Amino acid sequence: MPPLADPVPESWPQAPAPLIGVGAEILCIGTELLLGTITNGNARWLAEELASLGVPHFRQGVVGDNRERLIGQLREAAGRCQLLITTGGLGPTPDDLTTEAIASAFGAPLVEHAEVWADIQAKMAARGRVPSPSNRKQALLPQGAMLLPNPTGTAPGMIWSPAPPEPGFPICPGFTVLTFPGVPSELRAMWAATAVPWLRQAGLAQGVFASRMLRFWGVAESSLAESVADLLALENPTVAPYAGAGEVKLRLTARAATPAAAQALLLPVEAELRQRTGSHCYGADGDSLASVLIDRLRQRGETLAVAESCTGGGLGAALAAVPGASDVFLGGVIAYANAVKQQLLAVPADLLESHGAVSDPVARAMAVGVQHLTGATWTIAVTGIAGPAGGSAEKPVGTVFMAVAGPAAPATALECQSGLWQAGATRGRAWVQAVGAGEALNCLRLRLDALAAVSSPNGQQLQF
Amino acid sequence: MPPLADPVPESWPQAPAPLIGVGAEILCIGTELLLGTITNGNARWLAEELASLGVPHFRQGVVGDNRERLIGQLREAAGRCQLLITTGGLGPTPDDLTTEAIASAFGAPLVEHAEVWADIQAKMAARGRVPSPSNRKQALLPQGAMLLPNPTGTAPGMIWSPAPPEPGFPICPGFTVLTFPGVPSELRAMWAATAVPWLRQAGLAQGVFASRMLRFWGVAESSLAESVADLLALENPTVAPYAGAGEVKLRLTARAATPAAAQALLLPVEAELRQRTGSHCYGADGDSLASVLIDRLRQRGETLAVAESCTGGGLGAALAAVPGASDVFLGGVIAYANAVKQQLLAVPADLLESHGAVSDPVARAMAVGVQHLTGATWTIAVTGIAGPAGGSAEKPVGTVFMAVAGPAAPATALECQSGLWQAGATRGRAWVQAVGAGEALNCLRLRLDALAAVSSPNGQQLQF
Repeated sequence: MPPLADPVPESWPQAPAPLIGVGAEILCIGTELLLGTITNGNARWLAEELASLGVPHFRQGVVGDNRERLIGQLREAAGRCQLLITTGGLGPTPDDLTTEAIASAFGAPLVEHAEVWADIQAKMAARGRVPSPSNRKQALLPQGAMLLPNPTGTAPGMIWSPAPPEPGFPICPGFTVLTFPGVPSELRAMWAATAVPWLRQAGLAQGVFASRMLRFWGVAESSLAESVADLLALENPTVAPYAGAGEVKLRLTARAATPAAAQALLLPVEAELRQRTGSHCYGADGDSLASVLIDRLRQRGETLAVAESCTGGGLGAALAAVPGASDVFLGGVIAYANAVKQQLLAVPADLLESHGAVSDPVARAMAVGVQHLTGATWTIAVTGIAGPAGGSAEKPVGTVFMAVAGPAAPATALECQSGLWQAGATRGRAWVQAVGAGEALNCLRLRLDALAAVSSPNGQQLQF
Repeated sequence: MPPLADPVPESWPQAPAPLIGVGAEILCIGTELLLGTITNGNARWLAEELASLGVPHFRQGVVGDNRERLIGQLREAAGRCQLLITTGGLGPTPDDLTTEAIASAFGAPLVEHAEVWADIQAKMAARGRVPSPSNRKQALLPQGAMLLPNPTGTAPGMIWSPAPPEPGFPICPGFTVLTFPGVPSELRAMWAATAVPWLRQAGLAQGVFASRMLRFWGVAESSLAESVADLLALENPTVAPYAGAGEVKLRLTARAATPAAAQALLLPVEAELRQRTGSHCYGADGDSLASVLIDRLRQRGETLAVAESCTGGGLGAALAAVPGASDVFLGGVIAYANAVKQQLLAVPADLLESHGAVSDPVARAMAVGVQHLTGATWTIAVTGIAGPAGGSAEKPVGTVFMAVAGPAAPATALECQSGLWQAGATRGRAWVQAVGAGEALNCLRLRLDALAAVSSPNGQQLQF
């Protein structure tokens, strides 16, 4: 959590205590969002900030650079939320309408701020540019609005609690609008420098949220949710499941007065979830299967190599995506063609002929072959049918065989375990390749779990 | 960005009255969006699709997994738009509320569709899983709703035009809701297979649109935009630039009464763009650098192998992502550790010592080594510093050397060309690995271009 910043000027609008169930809304303004030209990264960033500040946030909207529709959405929001945060439309061009539309929506005239115009002229002079007449409109704010300074760009924002524009107009008590430019770096600088201190002083940022993302592999979202159904009903912390490509996640979110108190609410629920889900839970937050595996092997002082057919390099790429992987991950062989399986990995021709390239014996031979070749402690091999062609009744598209070779218990002979994973024929090539790589990583992870359980003095149960 | 009032340029033929000013809205459902856990990529994708179909789209919204707020937004939207597209909340868990909330919002009972339940059971069985009771709720749809099938996942959507839930309830004539899962791959497959044909049949996708995405590598978005500035100002077809990871795209969109007329509008503009941009334009629409390269090599009857250090398998994975790659792509070696470079690729130890693993001579030796090993006609090698650690003043993070080995002109000795690419130190590991793989693929593409130019009887200019 950032420390409390300096107090904001007393002249700024004072907000009443937070209205639970009202909270904040984000309104992102720009036709490029409606055209799909850009992704709305500002909404995600602001949402994360609001969550970490403990500001309740129930709704986001997007509207184009259209004056009437923008005014309509501003007036709607005034009757619904206490805090409206807008992004975009503060620039100098004719399609930058936000400030004027806000003034119109609430019936206030625009007033030029001489210090803003001076600041714009100074910033443009510093870049060797002459302000154009259109820049001057950036110095206008609705009468009564406070400046939200922009330390880096020319477009300032505002903090304004407008009065109802006409008698009987429904407006939430304390309704306040904060405007930001759409340029992410400017939005972020202004948010940190001015908006966060204001939110804290106004009492809107009360308490903090802490969250934790637990990550699972090898379990369906529905099964996981049923096994923890009582915890999904908790109110503080909340527990919510998400499904990704092959992965399932549970997000825990706690709200409390201090970061320490929020963490204290999370810990017992995380412990209970881990206890119930056992080895299905592979990590948390920024972990990936590959990063967890590399950490484990580094702790053991061991190395890893791969032999890939259907994934074509995806397994290695997942491992190489982990910063600092090089002290564990040696590399390996992409044995896409059968000739490479034979010549580099020494997979016997008769094995390929009798069982086919997509088979348990070939996966094992690939794992052993790359171990001989590289001398890695552990190796993972994958061979499968990614599709769309190449499937058969016996081995449909999505059939993937994988094998793990490692040091045998007495450390003399190679030890190899293997498995079959079935993606389901409808998933498509990219899914089979990406999730197949994940399944293969998970095989070795479970293998290391089992070894740790065997060697543990507490004699935990084996978890194959 | 031209100041468009609405997503559809006004110069285009106007759709019949009821649609203009009503159009479509996108409502994305999920607390993870309000928490800022994920970016709303679905809204961007759908917005781009609606724009290319000519469906007017004026508003996007986000709401959490909260039944009352969701019902509120659904009822609001019914009075405002003709087409409401929702994403998310179709899963089996208790926080998946979309279908039930839609039924409640418009006062319809839920009805189980036996064929959907059978499909869910079959899909789970194919993955070796047993459906849980919670999966069964995915077979429920509001009475009167039409199924929007999900070819890949278990969560189907609906197409439904609800009646007003109570007398006097304001609902737009023809109001229809389409629901999609939040999993992007499922959303996209369902959109293409069912929603697009339905939109066309329903007359919501007015006129006929033809679009073409031209793909570029090796040129900055700003340079490309400046070189075609006059074409970016066209109104029909429109030409809009997009920048991705290393790639720049130009989307051409034409609107006309018939497909032939729309295509006729595109063709001269595409020809002009290709003429001006030369070899920077590597393909169109669904092409990737890898798919273009594999097609070219297949036509030449040649094969390809890779030797990867910093990309760790990403180059191979990009090639293996292309369906049917196996008749060209043989595989290769992931030489992440120097020992693998020496032992498998026969890179001399003194070369590694005197020049370092990230150097032009080592890239060349890797390319030649993997060619000896696999017998491929062409090979590509990559070695670089992906970061965050490992950079130096002489070779900062983002330094990538690449080499291409191929048959020499008289076809006796090996021929090897190499190059240096500098990502810029601020880009981050994932960028260096992904764009570095693209740069390496592009080296061989340009090499094949040059060969084609040399051997062409028309004597086109060489394009190194």
